[in-house]
Amino acid sequence: MSLIPEPVERLAAEFGRLPGIGPKTAQRLTFYCLRSDPAQVARLAAALGELRSAVRTCSRCFFIADEDLCGICRSATRDVSAICVVEDALDVLAVERSGGFHGLYHVLGGALSPIEGVGPDQLRVAELEARLRGGEVVEVVLATDPDVEGEATAHYLSERLSGSGVRLTRLAHGLPAGADLQYADELTIARALAGRRSLDADRVP
Amino acid sequence: MSLIPEPVERLAAEFGRLPGIGPKTAQRLTFYCLRSDPAQVARLAAALGELRSAVRTCSRCFFIADEDLCGICRSATRDVSAICVVEDALDVLAVERSGGFHGLYHVLGGALSPIEGVGPDQLRVAELEARLRGGEVVEVVLATDPDVEGEATAHYLSERLSGSGVRLTRLAHGLPAGADLQYADELTIARALAGRRSLDADRVP
Repeated sequence: MSLIPEPVERLAAEFGRLPGIGPKTAQRLTFYCLRSDPAQVARLAAALGELRSAVRTCSRCFFIADEDLCGICRSATRDVSAICVVEDALDVLAVERSGGFHGLYHVLGGALSPIEGVGPDQLRVAELEARLRGGEVVEVVLATDPDVEGEATAHYLSERLSGSGVRLTRLAHGLPAGADLQYADELTIARALAGRRSLDADRVP
Repeated sequence: MSLIPEPVERLAAEFGRLPGIGPKTAQRLTFYCLRSDPAQVARLAAALGELRSAVRTCSRCFFIADEDLCGICRSATRDVSAICVVEDALDVLAVERSGGFHGLYHVLGGALSPIEGVGPDQLRVAELEARLRGGEVVEVVLATDPDVEGEATAHYLSERLSGSGVRLTRLAHGLPAGADLQYADELTIARALAGRRSLDADRVP
């Protein structure tokens, strides 16, 4: 016996396919949609429907864009001599929120992962090399995640791009802002020690 | 400067209007939709679009239904002499999952809340009274939430229905299964003590 009408089951199943949404949350969202203003549900459905037709990836940096180039690549105020290499488009937003980088980006589309079959050809590495050949770029900041795959990717890129003549840098490892030293893991503390800097002069990478 | 194409901003805003989904989760869901199979996004949009046209509330118990009566009211195997009164449709699913009730339901559509302007006329109390007049019902289980509004609603219903000739019962208060006594709050322990039962005989409510 099915207690729940089929369209309700179907919506709960679709919500449940989204990342981080378990069966109970999916059911709660579905019942919220049943109770809420029908116009709100219609707006969500419409926004989902428009998304893929209206959005593409930037032909230069592969961030999301509504034209051929994204808003960052089109901007006249960005420093075109620096490229920050990240795994995903969401990483671009994270770096932008920090306010600490004013150059351009390059979205790899993931990180090297032999287990998942992701090699250099599955990432946008050749496209990055092509951008460096233009001669404008002076520094490439490798901002892949500080996990196993991200470190392997940064290491691979640093070797592959070593002859390109650009300065290669990596985001600093260390204690996150607001952290409590006694709760930090050993690797983070070891890296914070290895990367310690003198207080009377700026460390130049 | 808008970094993000407008359709992406719009979808993130709509996701963010759902309960329990903050701005960061909304953004993560949106970027997932950008990366994922377009057919999956289309299915979610379609399921949202169909929901309201295909689903109604049961004309008897006000649970969700795809016909005039819901699957529970239509079932030939339910005990029609007992009605479990709950606040919301999701509560019906919770009681069903427990496997401890085999009668019918009555969804009030909320709980009494003077602050939010919800009085007896905003709930389906008159509809419940009408069902009791049929004479089939022997027991009404008041299963509103064990919070202030739910208790007030149960109290109100017990007074209003006291002359109807049915047996009125309330879900037991006590320690939840798997709980740790030392972490239970005082009110729960006080209620568990007040409702304590003899181990050599079943307590009859």
